[in-house]
Amino acid sequence: MSELEEYQKTPRSTVNRLKKRAVYDHDTVHNIIDSVPVLHVSFVPVSLEDDPFPATLPMLGCTGSFTSESPDAVLSIYLHGYVSSRLMKLPASNVSEEELPGTPVCIAATHLDGLVLALTPFHHSCNYRSAIVHGWAHIVTNSAEKIYALERITDNMLSNRWENTRVPPTKAEMDSTGVLRVDIVSASAKVRAGGPSDDRPDLKDEELTQRVWTGVVPSWIQYGEPIPGPNNHVGSVPDYITKWVQWENEKNGRQARDAVFLEVNKK
Amino acid sequence: MSELEEYQKTPRSTVNRLKKRAVYDHDTVHNIIDSVPVLHVSFVPVSLEDDPFPATLPMLGCTGSFTSESPDAVLSIYLHGYVSSRLMKLPASNVSEEELPGTPVCIAATHLDGLVLALTPFHHSCNYRSAIVHGWAHIVTNSAEKIYALERITDNMLSNRWENTRVPPTKAEMDSTGVLRVDIVSASAKVRAGGPSDDRPDLKDEELTQRVWTGVVPSWIQYGEPIPGPNNHVGSVPDYITKWVQWENEKNGRQARDAVFLEVNKK
Repeated sequence: MSELEEYQKTPRSTVNRLKKRAVYDHDTVHNIIDSVPVLHVSFVPVSLEDDPFPATLPMLGCTGSFTSESPDAVLSIYLHGYVSSRLMKLPASNVSEEELPGTPVCIAATHLDGLVLALTPFHHSCNYRSAIVHGWAHIVTNSAEKIYALERITDNMLSNRWENTRVPPTKAEMDSTGVLRVDIVSASAKVRAGGPSDDRPDLKDEELTQRVWTGVVPSWIQYGEPIPGPNNHVGSVPDYITKWVQWENEKNGRQARDAVFLEVNKK
Repeated sequence: MSELEEYQKTPRSTVNRLKKRAVYDHDTVHNIIDSVPVLHVSFVPVSLEDDPFPATLPMLGCTGSFTSESPDAVLSIYLHGYVSSRLMKLPASNVSEEELPGTPVCIAATHLDGLVLALTPFHHSCNYRSAIVHGWAHIVTNSAEKIYALERITDNMLSNRWENTRVPPTKAEMDSTGVLRVDIVSASAKVRAGGPSDDRPDLKDEELTQRVWTGVVPSWIQYGEPIPGPNNHVGSVPDYITKWVQWENEKNGRQARDAVFLEVNKK
């Protein structure tokens, strides 16, 4: 991997604990962001004196690069939001555009790949893939960029869905749909894989090892059989949906099981 | 439900958009927190001038009430963390105990129950259950409370696991395990359930309704067949694990499918 493909390690994004679990390459970060169905977006409230608590919203979103000439360059994360929410209001009401280049947000995405069961509670752990991105959030006002983002977010939810719906959106729909672009400042990923890791004295304790089962219970997001709505008039579930469900379940299950046998970042 | 069982609606916890999706009762909030395998914990950095971005950590945790005499009263969320992490350091290095009663944090937990596929991208949505809790975080130093929290967190991960491992932890294990207690200040939950909700003109468009499949793809967390570790010496997977896996998968799948037929909070 070339250096250009890695995010810069800043003090903020540097993972201090268990450095060997930390990975910074673009592909890992983007893959986690795009495969987690719900992102958690955090921001600092308008006045810390009145309200000292950070705020978090669950949002739909995915990576994108509308302004880049290279299709591989991911510069931003697009989020589907509502213009009236507190987050979307922040740039206008709180942060001066002259002071900061946008609203500072933190986007978190985590996949649980399995429960790691060791001889002692102390060594219990989880296999997971987690990405944290910091960036400047902006409301997208350019129509072409907004359409680009909505198509990406819709197809990231379920492949090929956009072209299989009524598009383009009407002007009223566009006006009442909010889209945020978060320009990435720093990003990092943390991955834990492998089986349980126990201490030597416990491993030598025969009474204990005969009694306590150790291993991993893999876990993943499973999609069920599609359930038609009351106004559906299409006789059977289209192929692009059934194939996507099958593909996702196979991929997600395989990834969780494969993680057990990876020898990296086990501790 | 009595008023005592509901969280107070503060400006911070009041869900502004789509109020009918918002629920504030304890049971809903606690159930979401305890059934989501990974919580996202956000906090404000030490100096906003040097670093304007909020920080988020994925953590294991669950509700608890060590100090309460009533077993039903949940006053806190316990988080399993590491004493060296930035979050755990905050109370000592930044926030004066005299100024604030702890480190202000936001805990987010979201279940995706399904992808809601409508005639138009605009009406695409997700069925979900999401909880947001604000509270004051403290490092737990009392040994009895720490053991209480670790047992709860371990058993919340997998029922009955604690008693089926080597317990109690050694002093060295206890000393190097960090536990945070977050005393709940405010909390809210948001729930979206039901099928797709389309506009009348689209529903009357026969070409469209003949072409676009509408409905819900249910989704849930699935646990796979337990995979023994290289040092496991127990012949078969114990009943309490296989039964728990079966129970969780049945419950999670049923909940996702049932959500499709709930008529609340559909819009």
